[in-house]
Amino acid sequence: MLNRLISQRRARQFRRLLRNGKLTLLCLVLTVVVLRGNLGAGRFGTPEKDLDEIRETFSYIRKHAEPRRALVEPSKGQRQRNKPSGGTENGSKNDAEFDVKKILKDEDDGVEEFKRDSTQPYSLGPKIENWDQMRDEWLKKHPNVANFIAEKKPRVLLVTGSSPKPCENPVGDHYLLKSIKNKIDYCRLHGIEVFYNMALLDAEMAGFWAKLPLIRKLLLSHPEVELLWWMDSDAMFTDMAFEVPWERYKDHNLVMHGWNEMVYDQKNWIGLNTGSFLLRNCQWSLDILDTLAPMGPKGKVREEAGKLLTRELKDRPVFEADDQSAMVYILATQKDKWGDKVYLENTYYLHGYWGILVDKYEEMIQKYHPGLGDDRWPLVTHFVGCKPCAKFGDYPVERCLKQMDRAFNFGDDQILRTYGFSHKSLASRGVKRIRNETGNPLEEIRDHTGVPSLPS
Amino acid sequence: MLNRLISQRRARQFRRLLRNGKLTLLCLVLTVVVLRGNLGAGRFGTPEKDLDEIRETFSYIRKHAEPRRALVEPSKGQRQRNKPSGGTENGSKNDAEFDVKKILKDEDDGVEEFKRDSTQPYSLGPKIENWDQMRDEWLKKHPNVANFIAEKKPRVLLVTGSSPKPCENPVGDHYLLKSIKNKIDYCRLHGIEVFYNMALLDAEMAGFWAKLPLIRKLLLSHPEVELLWWMDSDAMFTDMAFEVPWERYKDHNLVMHGWNEMVYDQKNWIGLNTGSFLLRNCQWSLDILDTLAPMGPKGKVREEAGKLLTRELKDRPVFEADDQSAMVYILATQKDKWGDKVYLENTYYLHGYWGILVDKYEEMIQKYHPGLGDDRWPLVTHFVGCKPCAKFGDYPVERCLKQMDRAFNFGDDQILRTYGFSHKSLASRGVKRIRNETGNPLEEIRDHTGVPSLPS
Repeated sequence: MLNRLISQRRARQFRRLLRNGKLTLLCLVLTVVVLRGNLGAGRFGTPEKDLDEIRETFSYIRKHAEPRRALVEPSKGQRQRNKPSGGTENGSKNDAEFDVKKILKDEDDGVEEFKRDSTQPYSLGPKIENWDQMRDEWLKKHPNVANFIAEKKPRVLLVTGSSPKPCENPVGDHYLLKSIKNKIDYCRLHGIEVFYNMALLDAEMAGFWAKLPLIRKLLLSHPEVELLWWMDSDAMFTDMAFEVPWERYKDHNLVMHGWNEMVYDQKNWIGLNTGSFLLRNCQWSLDILDTLAPMGPKGKVREEAGKLLTRELKDRPVFEADDQSAMVYILATQKDKWGDKVYLENTYYLHGYWGILVDKYEEMIQKYHPGLGDDRWPLVTHFVGCKPCAKFGDYPVERCLKQMDRAFNFGDDQILRTYGFSHKSLASRGVKRIRNETGNPLEEIRDHTGVPSLPS
Repeated sequence: MLNRLISQRRARQFRRLLRNGKLTLLCLVLTVVVLRGNLGAGRFGTPEKDLDEIRETFSYIRKHAEPRRALVEPSKGQRQRNKPSGGTENGSKNDAEFDVKKILKDEDDGVEEFKRDSTQPYSLGPKIENWDQMRDEWLKKHPNVANFIAEKKPRVLLVTGSSPKPCENPVGDHYLLKSIKNKIDYCRLHGIEVFYNMALLDAEMAGFWAKLPLIRKLLLSHPEVELLWWMDSDAMFTDMAFEVPWERYKDHNLVMHGWNEMVYDQKNWIGLNTGSFLLRNCQWSLDILDTLAPMGPKGKVREEAGKLLTRELKDRPVFEADDQSAMVYILATQKDKWGDKVYLENTYYLHGYWGILVDKYEEMIQKYHPGLGDDRWPLVTHFVGCKPCAKFGDYPVERCLKQMDRAFNFGDDQILRTYGFSHKSLASRGVKRIRNETGNPLEEIRDHTGVPSLPS
């Protein structure tokens, strides 16, 4: 029996070795490309585009490799409880156990959500044609709620959110909590308001498409908001001092991290990133949302749209339509219509792919300082593919969670520093004092750029 | 074997019945008191004080009854893993399982945190004597960062927080997430800034005492803040429209929900609540923090202080010193020193005990409206004793979590309503449309009091 177990285990290890061997070979090839990319990288900014290609290639690999294990492999009892079932959980349940699924069961679970006639074209809402004029009129009537909070500083609403259900992964909600704390800190320092969404406004537009009905609703309900900043829940601020160069975008309505060539020339599906973007509150924005939306409705429409996008875009894997691919497609195929109002920003990390940033934090601390926003000190570190809330992500869960802790602490240190504290290390939850109190608190006040509040 | 299992089970059931019988008798007695209290309740405000006594009596009962089961009874394997151990987890661990404790193990876990000489009196920091003057000077030098953001409207910083560790209860972090979203919503509507703390600034002052070093640090670092509003993570806003009557407190430095007689005459440990309070940024506040702090340091000091407080206060159970009991004690024994600057508020629920509120939400919706803040529509519903983050709380976990969902939805509906949505019921995560879009978005804009933005 023991011998049989040992040989079964060896067979599994051998098969895993083979699979990893193929991956290793591919990694070697990509390493060469990385080196090539590094040698040719621009002075400061965000790394050459091929590095992002590598990123997404890895992501593609992982999507098609063995599914990553969840954080904790469910015990046999839990696996039985987690099997989809129509009714309440019974069977192996111990009388002494509270069934968490029963407690958290929502009375609407499983009820058919949407009844729209799917042969009719999808719409985000009644067509609005003159929002610019309506908004101007409203602003004139409400001069005390201006759309600019200071000269050249627009009123910005940062919008993010997550599912109203607890995460399938037990620690997922803890990372969502740290992520919103991180956003609260940045926004407090920069005079930005926060909206955390936990409501699915349109069941047809679930998943990544849920942001469209939400964004439209918020724009129309808040005419005082000049710019809406959408930010994914898996993106964190890692430069607490960097102020977005608002003036740079005064003639643009949509700002995303990306590269013109990758979008307009290559139609590369990762030519831009919709995990962190700025959208102006205007008619143009309503129009582009209306243009994107038809690819979103769950089911056949989204699947077919996904096939179109895979066909039309460079390097896109096979999966249902997502809003980022749709954006690349719309911009690339309707450049004349939208292009002049879209700013693809790459001089700082409005979105920064975590894979190429997180191992460099210590080096950044050594060499640089907050306020740069770019590859020296990234504004945003975005954990694409990690999916801490889900059972499975695209990357090893241990790496994701450890790196998310480091990114959080990297940003948090910039807050704690103003109070004379710092994390003991980037890996540590614990904090230590880095500045003794003097009894003269005014001397100790630092603003968020680290500048003392009063000249000494 | 089966017969033996059945008889063991019956024996357990019988013993449980006996225990519950004692509880049932006590509940009957208390029900009579409740009725008496209800018949004598004031017109509007917050219920008669004896109801809170009942609350705390129940809390006391539960503290001494069978410990409440956690949300999910750990499996045998998990129980072994969760046993405190000095090193890494081994033994029964399956190779295929990721050990969540290993992944989340903080390199500082178990390291002795504080080395202060405990024979020396504890201090929150160097003694500051002239903070009022220092603060005035700072405000004069920074006229663009005024301590009043509008006439009669002070700059308020709402401070809350939770542990940097994931909750022991798997769904605890989800409730912390909903709680901070709730606070973000209220504060956005009321021009209040938020600080979410996840750092333990002083390891000796862990637990409920952690707020003291934090509050002191924030007051001294933010002279622009006029009032600091501490709010527990288990308290939620349930009246999104109610504006705190700031002017009422212009001559006071500390505002808590409570009753003068219960504090100054009875020295009742629940005569006030420190789960939600306002503290002015001034020398007086630094002084009262300094006065409370000596009861806080973990270990012998806190235990001995706890015994003193149990002896001196009415109805206080036996446990280590907590900040609320310390506050009652200090105020009651030093009334001449502090009393004139303390406002014990009970005309609205700056803190509202959840037990007497949550079953009435539907009735409130029927009869009343947001903006009242009192027992008709409570400003704050505070889930004292529920402890969703911990393994065990003072109340049945199912009741706590379901009621926290209801309270969250009750508050969230007041936000969603402005966008034309509502939860399907107070128990449901799902939302439904309650107002169709017309194509004229300005007509649909409601401010947070529900008043249309433009006259129709």
